Amino acid sequence: MHSNPTRITRLQKRLKRKKIDALLVTEPYNRRYLSGYTASDNGIAETAGVLLIPASGAPYLLTDSRFVLQAEEEAQGYTISLYPKGLSTLLKKLLPELGISSLGFESQYMLHATALKMQDNLAQIGVDFIACTELIERMRLVKTEEEIRLLKKSVLRNEQVFQLVYNTIEPGMTEREIALAIELTMHELGAERPSFETIVAFGTNAAKPHAVPTDRVLKTGDIVLVDMGLVLEGYCSDMTRTFVAGKPDATYVDRVRVVRRAQKEATDTIRAGVTCKEVDRTARRIIEEAGYGEYFGHALGHGVGLAVHENPRLSSRSRKQLKAGMIVTVEPGIYLPEWGGIRLENMVVVHEDGAETLNEDTTGLDL
Amino acid sequence: MHSNPTRITRLQKRLKRKKIDALLVTEPYNRRYLSGYTASDNGIAETAGVLLIPASGAPYLLTDSRFVLQAEEEAQGYTISLYPKGLSTLLKKLLPELGISSLGFESQYMLHATALKMQDNLAQIGVDFIACTELIERMRLVKTEEEIRLLKKSVLRNEQVFQLVYNTIEPGMTEREIALAIELTMHELGAERPSFETIVAFGTNAAKPHAVPTDRVLKTGDIVLVDMGLVLEGYCSDMTRTFVAGKPDATYVDRVRVVRRAQKEATDTIRAGVTCKEVDRTARRIIEEAGYGEYFGHALGHGVGLAVHENPRLSSRSRKQLKAGMIVTVEPGIYLPEWGGIRLENMVVVHEDGAETLNEDTTGLDL
Repeated sequence: MHSNPTRITRLQKRLKRKKIDALLVTEPYNRRYLSGYTASDNGIAETAGVLLIPASGAPYLLTDSRFVLQAEEEAQGYTISLYPKGLSTLLKKLLPELGISSLGFESQYMLHATALKMQDNLAQIGVDFIACTELIERMRLVKTEEEIRLLKKSVLRNEQVFQLVYNTIEPGMTEREIALAIELTMHELGAERPSFETIVAFGTNAAKPHAVPTDRVLKTGDIVLVDMGLVLEGYCSDMTRTFVAGKPDATYVDRVRVVRRAQKEATDTIRAGVTCKEVDRTARRIIEEAGYGEYFGHALGHGVGLAVHENPRLSSRSRKQLKAGMIVTVEPGIYLPEWGGIRLENMVVVHEDGAETLNEDTTGLDL
Repeated sequence: MHSNPTRITRLQKRLKRKKIDALLVTEPYNRRYLSGYTASDNGIAETAGVLLIPASGAPYLLTDSRFVLQAEEEAQGYTISLYPKGLSTLLKKLLPELGISSLGFESQYMLHATALKMQDNLAQIGVDFIACTELIERMRLVKTEEEIRLLKKSVLRNEQVFQLVYNTIEPGMTEREIALAIELTMHELGAERPSFETIVAFGTNAAKPHAVPTDRVLKTGDIVLVDMGLVLEGYCSDMTRTFVAGKPDATYVDRVRVVRRAQKEATDTIRAGVTCKEVDRTARRIIEEAGYGEYFGHALGHGVGLAVHENPRLSSRSRKQLKAGMIVTVEPGIYLPEWGGIRLENMVVVHEDGAETLNEDTTGLDL
């Protein structure tokens, strides 16, 4: 991915409309989206750099000496400036030089304490520090064809990893062993990293939607739930498969069919113009009618892109309408603490007239 | 790690002094420190739960259905409450029940946008939402004997991983292969996870202090810089070793001796009462006198505990005094873009009368 002049121009138009002289971009995916700079932050308090995008003129990447070589290599078209004495000190020098007297910041990705401190610092030089929200996230909602191609590639690579590891799973293995084999195979097949901590859960552990892999040993007849994703060329995949080690019993078969039907019918509902809550409602109604309503405690899905969890959210509370080019997961589940859990998750792209599932293995492994 | 009544009592005393009815704990390490709850957040915007610690009475862990089983298992002594309709909705019900009319929040670990939204929401029920800063971080600065024991264990396990992988390194391997072997060995030796993304950098890549492993192939005579750490029972290690594949030349030998001397003399300066900047100064002076001052662009070290980067910072700007029981890294380095880099990093515990290096391999691998 390279820096993207079109994206910068679109953002600059928005800044001019809002009468903000520049935007400070702190959110790491937004930073990558606009600049092509791929460095990772170590949590929100340790940034690998921020962008300063003036409403007109060339953009800046502000970072420290640890990252300067990588920044120069990757952020084409950006001026790289260093802040050996901290970001505020650099801004107090740079903003007056650039004639910037109002600076927007990403309120959704700056710590409250940091924002207050910077507001004070910038007030000293007469610069207004203005809370903005999700300006760039809104640009990221609808994917370009190139982004859809990369997301599909990430999905298929993820399926390939799953298939390789799935073929080796047998009783006696632990959740941690399988999770580790998955993450190792991701690396071997060229992924940058997992897009989230891989979930492998056996039996009753599968009742925790965010289970952390343990040393629990797989026994014949156990449910196996695997939720995994990887990052390839910056873009995330996210997929869940549930199956049984050995022959599933009638209860499992009944329940997996409910989840499968919820997933299929919800996917069939998706097209541009439909609200998120309608899609969630479709899946939830099927699960409720089967008597498992109280065991489906999370939203139906979420957007995926540079971040593994983006907008839109397919939740019962979201009245937002889907648009063509959005990519969302569809992942209904039922979780019974004494028994186990089943979740099936695919990624789909929204078109004007329907949904296209990016996964090629659309059926899961189920009955 | 279990929930810790002593820590809760200490925090409650602080809340009473500040006349705050309760504190909302959002920072994940603080959450684990007080509750023993080990769930990971997926970035700051996706929490696995927050603590509500009233100034008197029993504490609460607020989470969602995905985490309820883990929360119940781990957070002993906590009442678990779920927020199916979001945290604000739960707080608007719970705070009046508990008679809480002022609620502190961790300004250093809440997003600006989130804090503003919650402030509005809580104002509707007459609750003041009050920015607090690093109340619990300050409690975490000085480690207990038990914590020092766990940190030492993490350091030694990390050295063991390094030694196993070091023995296999040979020309032809890539940075990524070695980094992956390290992370795999960490898992095999029982680590929860790496404490940060492992750095393996050959030759000129070693001039980037935060290099990301690439497919660059190791050649005889290359510098190899490895910066690695793991999490064991919640506690982090962090260590850097630099060596040469084959026989080092005279330039390398000169430079590594400078870095080694900077590390040794800075460590010798450490004891309770010394300021952080004095320790940084000692190392920086040696590097400057050798003519590499401009090539040492980062601070000398940082605290380590539940987080891999904590206070205190051994930086040229910190006037804070070290206290007995603090644990810091000592990691001088020199980085020359055309040549490569050298960094040596150990972890040391501050005592009243000196420093104790936790690493057993204190020499690195160098000449």
